[in-house]
Amino acid sequence: MSVVTVARLPPELAPLSGAHYSAVELDADDRRAFVLDQRLLPAEVAYQVVESASAMAEAIRAMVVRGAPAIGIAAAYGVALGARAAADLGPEAFVAALEAAAAELRATRPTAVNLAWAVERMLHAARTARELVGPERAARLAAVARELHREDVRACRRMGAAGAARLPDACTVLTHCNAGALATGGFGTALGVVRAAVAAGKRVRVIADETRPYLQGARLTAWELAEDGIDVTVISDGMAAHCMARGLVDVVVVGADRIAANGDVANKIGTYGVACLARVHELPFYVAAPWSTFDLATPDGSAIVIEERSADELAVVGTRRIVPEGAHVLHPAFDVTPARLVAAIFTETGEVAAEPGAIARAYAAR
Amino acid sequence: MSVVTVARLPPELAPLSGAHYSAVELDADDRRAFVLDQRLLPAEVAYQVVESASAMAEAIRAMVVRGAPAIGIAAAYGVALGARAAADLGPEAFVAALEAAAAELRATRPTAVNLAWAVERMLHAARTARELVGPERAARLAAVARELHREDVRACRRMGAAGAARLPDACTVLTHCNAGALATGGFGTALGVVRAAVAAGKRVRVIADETRPYLQGARLTAWELAEDGIDVTVISDGMAAHCMARGLVDVVVVGADRIAANGDVANKIGTYGVACLARVHELPFYVAAPWSTFDLATPDGSAIVIEERSADELAVVGTRRIVPEGAHVLHPAFDVTPARLVAAIFTETGEVAAEPGAIARAYAAR
Repeated sequence: MSVVTVARLPPELAPLSGAHYSAVELDADDRRAFVLDQRLLPAEVAYQVVESASAMAEAIRAMVVRGAPAIGIAAAYGVALGARAAADLGPEAFVAALEAAAAELRATRPTAVNLAWAVERMLHAARTARELVGPERAARLAAVARELHREDVRACRRMGAAGAARLPDACTVLTHCNAGALATGGFGTALGVVRAAVAAGKRVRVIADETRPYLQGARLTAWELAEDGIDVTVISDGMAAHCMARGLVDVVVVGADRIAANGDVANKIGTYGVACLARVHELPFYVAAPWSTFDLATPDGSAIVIEERSADELAVVGTRRIVPEGAHVLHPAFDVTPARLVAAIFTETGEVAAEPGAIARAYAAR
Repeated sequence: MSVVTVARLPPELAPLSGAHYSAVELDADDRRAFVLDQRLLPAEVAYQVVESASAMAEAIRAMVVRGAPAIGIAAAYGVALGARAAADLGPEAFVAALEAAAAELRATRPTAVNLAWAVERMLHAARTARELVGPERAARLAAVARELHREDVRACRRMGAAGAARLPDACTVLTHCNAGALATGGFGTALGVVRAAVAAGKRVRVIADETRPYLQGARLTAWELAEDGIDVTVISDGMAAHCMARGLVDVVVVGADRIAANGDVANKIGTYGVACLARVHELPFYVAAPWSTFDLATPDGSAIVIEERSADELAVVGTRRIVPEGAHVLHPAFDVTPARLVAAIFTETGEVAAEPGAIARAYAAR
């Protein structure tokens, strides 16, 4: 399948991200989504033009778009594109078509729960829109997807405010992977905390783990913070402990791909190690995530499926094979940080302790 | 300066490494050293042909050869090449020429102490050989360098035996960077422990941290273990904690670039984090290093100079820039693991506790 790309969003499109770039946006005519190809950053800014649910599923699978909230939004837009394609079907066939699209989208990445949550919400909208006539159906689903996107950005801003309150007036935040505008509808979760603190006048510097194998920290976190003029220093993952021991880190803030009922946090591989190191160096380890990342049906981290991705994503860098033939490669894409290492979770309704009772109460009251 | 390379060692040269490859060897005529260009592994096996002390210094600086014991041996051969060039000078001029060569070699890498140790030993040999006539001088220094090389291989075999005794009959060893045949005269320090255990009939598998930014684990450790048919799995550095939590690791064994009098260990950046994680997961963390890596004049790790290398070594992978303009990069090449995290140190005279009294006693008795 040939992929069309454009170098920028259409000028008439006001990105819901609130920035000049966005991980994913739906065009004003509801016919095309623009997905920033994050695999090309920081060298190149290019948006894939995605016109079907299947193409969106492929974009998610191939990590054109990544980050738990962002892939939820991308999947929602994928269902909206599917609704347009199925707009003229009868009610049953319409719902069946969207269920098929939803299944394809849901299967792309197993660990992030936002994806399943967003798809389920879109399916609910599809079922309630089944009796509408063609164009109205498609417009309804596009509107629901856009609302989900707007909510995500609002949630990021709120959790940013909650987290910013916890940061010292002058501090260095270490983060892992990219939990920024690029991983969300806009503003970011962990980087939303940084942005909110900077907006509140705090002097915040960021140390970004490069985050092998995909290098989301080096490529994405550094890029979007540099775009905002926030001071960022990239280190290789193995340097985090050294930086902590040298007093260069005050706080750790990361995002999450799924949070279990007991507060265990699945996030990008390497997060758990950072949490251990934060504990050893007596630094607070915070998680920033919207309620859509919580999965109260999962009792604890041991029940979270850890996606295994291909060996070549680690063994080949660019065009260069760095691992010899004859050696094995492991590539778990996520790990689980036990709740006991998490100082607090920042959500859109405020700070929550990583503890089952607190999570259940805050979830009920959200 | 144009660099000549050859794809293999001359067939008449029996490598002192004891393997079919070697980090560095001196040709039978004492006129050329062959330095395996480790930057090209695993894609290509190529030896730089080095004919002068300055060229050897450049090979060390550029990390054509790396690994504390190996750069010591390379520097020794560098002085031997310098002795051949200066063979016909008068006694004073001969010593002065070798002192200049030694200074250039010593300045290439500040952290590894073997380098200074090997150069000092060669200078001592130069001084005692000053009254010899030309060809004999050069032959004497070549012989001393070869003896230093042979001693290193013997030391690796002995520390391997000491460490192998500590490994369970069936176990998985996690290691960081490359402390193998490629980092030594042959056989390896940490990987010497693995080789000795395998030779003793133990079933040992290795998990190799890829070791960013230089990827010595992925490229070198995996290559030389695969060459020996030892089971090796490469992970990115951020996966170590996850592997430990999942019970995939039994023991950690690493090498060292410098060990202070109190047992603090400077080694490749990332080692300290692995040591913290081993402690958190209650796994023994061992260091394998010859006495030439100990620096009893350095009281503890805080006095060890940590080499800062160029940002581009991290920010550029192959031809690809992974860090955007506008972001800073840190590149400390080493870190310090405090003695309290080190279960034991394997040396050529046996196992030593990482504790000042034990080190002082074993050093005196070595």
